[in-house]
Amino acid sequence: MATAAEAEAMRHAVALAAHGLGHTSPNPVVGCVILDAHGRTVGEGWHQRAGGPHAEVHALRAAGERARGGTALVTLEPCNHTGRTGPCAQALIDAGVARVRYAVADPTAEARGGAATLAAAGIDVAAGPLTDEAEAVNEAWLTSMRRGRPFVLWKYAATLDGRSAAADGTSRWITSAASRADVHRLRAEADAVVVGSGTLRADDPHLAVRDRDGATQPLRVVVDTRATITPGARVLDDAAPTLIAVAEDADTGHLPGVETVRLPRSADAEGLDIGALLTALHHRGVRSVLLEGGPTLAGAFLAAGAVDKVVGYLAPVLLGAGPAALADAGITTIAQALRLEAADVTRLGPDLRVTAVPAATLAEEN
Amino acid sequence: MATAAEAEAMRHAVALAAHGLGHTSPNPVVGCVILDAHGRTVGEGWHQRAGGPHAEVHALRAAGERARGGTALVTLEPCNHTGRTGPCAQALIDAGVARVRYAVADPTAEARGGAATLAAAGIDVAAGPLTDEAEAVNEAWLTSMRRGRPFVLWKYAATLDGRSAAADGTSRWITSAASRADVHRLRAEADAVVVGSGTLRADDPHLAVRDRDGATQPLRVVVDTRATITPGARVLDDAAPTLIAVAEDADTGHLPGVETVRLPRSADAEGLDIGALLTALHHRGVRSVLLEGGPTLAGAFLAAGAVDKVVGYLAPVLLGAGPAALADAGITTIAQALRLEAADVTRLGPDLRVTAVPAATLAEEN
Ligand SMILES: NC(=O)c1ccc[n+]([C@@H]2O[C@H](COP(=O)([O-])OP(=O)(O)OC[C@H]3O[C@@H](n4cnc5c(N)ncnc54)[C@H](OP(=O)(O)O)[C@@H]3O)[C@@H](O)[C@H]2O)c1
Ligand SMILES: NC(=O)c1ccc[n+]([C@@H]2O[C@H](COP(=O)([O-])OP(=O)(O)OC[C@H]3O[C@@H](n4cnc5c(N)ncnc54)[C@H](OP(=O)(O)O)[C@@H]3O)[C@@H](O)[C@H]2O)c1
Repeated sequence: MATAAEAEAMRHAVALAAHGLGHTSPNPVVGCVILDAHGRTVGEGWHQRAGGPHAEVHALRAAGERARGGTALVTLEPCNHTGRTGPCAQALIDAGVARVRYAVADPTAEARGGAATLAAAGIDVAAGPLTDEAEAVNEAWLTSMRRGRPFVLWKYAATLDGRSAAADGTSRWITSAASRADVHRLRAEADAVVVGSGTLRADDPHLAVRDRDGATQPLRVVVDTRATITPGARVLDDAAPTLIAVAEDADTGHLPGVETVRLPRSADAEGLDIGALLTALHHRGVRSVLLEGGPTLAGAFLAAGAVDKVVGYLAPVLLGAGPAALADAGITTIAQALRLEAADVTRLGPDLRVTAVPAATLAEEN
Repeated sequence: MATAAEAEAMRHAVALAAHGLGHTSPNPVVGCVILDAHGRTVGEGWHQRAGGPHAEVHALRAAGERARGGTALVTLEPCNHTGRTGPCAQALIDAGVARVRYAVADPTAEARGGAATLAAAGIDVAAGPLTDEAEAVNEAWLTSMRRGRPFVLWKYAATLDGRSAAADGTSRWITSAASRADVHRLRAEADAVVVGSGTLRADDPHLAVRDRDGATQPLRVVVDTRATITPGARVLDDAAPTLIAVAEDADTGHLPGVETVRLPRSADAEGLDIGALLTALHHRGVRSVLLEGGPTLAGAFLAAGAVDKVVGYLAPVLLGAGPAALADAGITTIAQALRLEAADVTRLGPDLRVTAVPAATLAEEN
C-alpha cells in the first residue's frame, strides 16, 4: 500500500515524466520523486533525453544525503542494466533509500529485474500506485515495446459530415487555430510524422514543429513508392530530418543527399508494405509515429491494424461534398466496421477533438 | 429585478413548460408558478395541450385565494386575447396577484400586449428573469413565429468519418441503443417527422414514437415527388397520422385514403420546393419539424437555408467507404461552407451527440 503522500508524489512524478515526451526515444519517459524519512520531497527529476541521466539519477542528485532512509517514487521500474548511465537500481541502493514504489513494471528483457535487485538488497519495493496514469504517459513507448513497432497515432481533421476538403479541393482553415496548435503539440511529442505521397503532392506540407520552445523536431517521413518528390519540396528543408520511403526499384537519382529507405511493396494492395515501414522506423529508434494522412494512407494503416489511437479534429462545419477524411480501409459491410472507444472529447476553440482507441486494442490489453 | 426565490421559481416554470413539448402546437409551451405574498409556492401549472387551459389558469386554480398579493412567474408574456380560453392577463388581474414576471415577450400580434394590460391594472410587471432558458424551451415555437415556417431540426447518424452506412449499404446499429432512444425523444417533441423518398424506398421506416408513455405521435411526412410510395409502406399504418408531399402532377390513384399535399417543384433543383413544403406544414399548425434525412433531402434543406439546428449522433466507428451522411448542399468551395456553432456535446452510451446551430442563424438573432 502506498500512503497518500506517496500517491501525491507519484502523481507529480508522472507530470515530470511528461516533460520528456518527444525527447527520450528510444527510451521511455520517466519521472522520479524522492521523499525523505519524514515524507518531505527532497529531490525530483525526469529523464530529459536519450543518453542523458535517468530520472532516478537526477532526483537522487538533488536529494543528496537526505535520500537515506527515504522513499523513491518512480513511474517505471528502475532499470537493472548498465546502459549509457549505470543501473538505477544500484544507484537507489547506494543512496540508502528504504522504500521504492514504481508505477509500471519494465516490460523489456534487458532492463527488467530492477525490482528484484532492490528487494534482494533489503529495500521495501512494490509496484504502484497510479499504474494507469503512468501507463498513459508512457503509452507510446510501452505500446512499441509490446508490439515491436512504433505506436501509431492517426490524426485527421474533418467537418461534421466527414469531409476533409470542399468539392474543389479547398480546405484552408477547416479547423481552428486552436486545433492547428494542438497538432503541433502532437508533432512535438512524436518521434516521426508520416504522410503519403498524395498529401505531399497536394499540399507540399512542411511537417516541422512551429511555435513550441525547446521542441525536438520529429523525423519527417513521406511514403512515396515511386520517389515522386522533387528536390524543392518544403519537407526537404533543414528544419527537421526527413526520410523518404520508396520501393526497392524506385529511381532516386534526382534526390542526391536526401535520405531514403527502400521497402518492399505491399503484397495485396497498392503502395509500400506498412509493416515493413514501421519495422524500418522502429530500427531507427522511432517509438511513436504521428500519421497525418492523407485518407488513402490512413486507410492502409487501418487495414493493416497499425493504428493504436485516433485523434479527430471535428470542425462544426458542413460541406455536403468533397473528399472524405478516410478512404478505403478494406471495410465493405457493417459487421467489419472498425469500432473504437471514445476516450476523450475536448473542445478546442469552436472545434471538437475526439480521441478514440480501437476496441480491439483495448480488448487485447485487458 | 427578480429575487432569488423568483429566479428559482422561474427555473421551475421553465421545467414545467418543457412537459408540454410535442403536445401544444400550434401554441407555445408555457409554464407558470405562483408565489404567495410570503414567497411560498402556492400554485404551478403548464400548458398541456392546444385547446386546454393555459399555464396561468392551471397555476391560479391550484393557488386559489393564496394568489392574492402574490407573484406570478410565467415563461411567456401572459396572453391578452380571448382564444379558446380567456385572456390570461385578465385572469391574473382577477386573482389579485401583485407582481408578474415573464421570461420572454410574446412576439405574436394577436397575443401580445398582456404586459401592458397588467401594468394598466396597477400590477408590478416586468420581463425576465431567465430569458435565455425560457427562449430555449420555446425555441421551436419562437423560431416558427419569427420565420413564418416551422422550426427545422436536422438529425443524422454517422461514423466518425462521416458515413451513414457501409459500402454495401448495411447500416444496422451504427449508433447505440441510447442514441436511438434519444431520437424517439426528438420525435416525441416534434410536430412532424420528415423523410425523403430515397429513405422511404431504402428503409421502409415507421417514423412513429416508440416506448414513450403519453407521447403525442408526430405527423409523418414523406417528400415523394412522383408518389412512388406503395400502399403497404409501414409509414401508412395507423400508428400516427401521415402526409405524403407530391408534385402537382403526381399520380396518386394507387393511394386511396392516403392524405397527400400537392406542391410545386423546386425552381432550380430536383424534387419539390422546400419553402412550399414548410409553408404547407405551417398552415397545418406544424411548428417543429424533425428532418430525419436522408442525405439528399437534408442537403436540399440546408441549401434552402431551412435548417435551424443540427443534431448529429456520431458513433465511434470508422468505415472508410459508404454513403456520406450529407449529400450536395450546393457548396463547392470552402468559403461557402456552412459554419455552425457546437452548442452542446453529450455522450450517449458509446456515441457522441453534437448539437449545433448555423452561425448565420445566431448572427441574425443577435
Ligand atoms: N483532413 C486531414 O486531416 C488531411 C490530412 C492529410 C491530407 N489531407 C488531404 O488528403 C489529400 C491527399 O490524400 P490522398 O489520399 O490523395 O493521399 P495520401 O493518403 O497522402 O497518399 C496516398 C499515396 O501514398 C502512397 N502510398 C505508399 N504506400 C501506400 C500504402 N501502403 N497504402 C496507401 N498508399 C500508399 C500511394 O502512392 P504511391 O504508391 O504512388 O506513392 C498513395 O496513392 C490532400 O488533399 C490533403 O490535403 C487531409
Ligand atoms: N444516417 C442517417 O441519419 C440517415 C437518415 C435517413 C436516411 N439515411 C439513409 O439515407 C439513404 C437514403 O437517402 P437518399 O439521399 O438516397 O434519399 P432521401 O434524402 O431520403 O430522399 C431523396 C429524395 O427525396 C425526393 N425529394 C423531393 N423533393 C426533394 C428536394 N427538394 N430535394 C431533394 N430531394 C427531394 C427526391 O426524389 P423524388 O423527387 O423522386 O421524390 C430525392 O431523390 C438510405 O440508405 C437511408 O438508410 C440515413
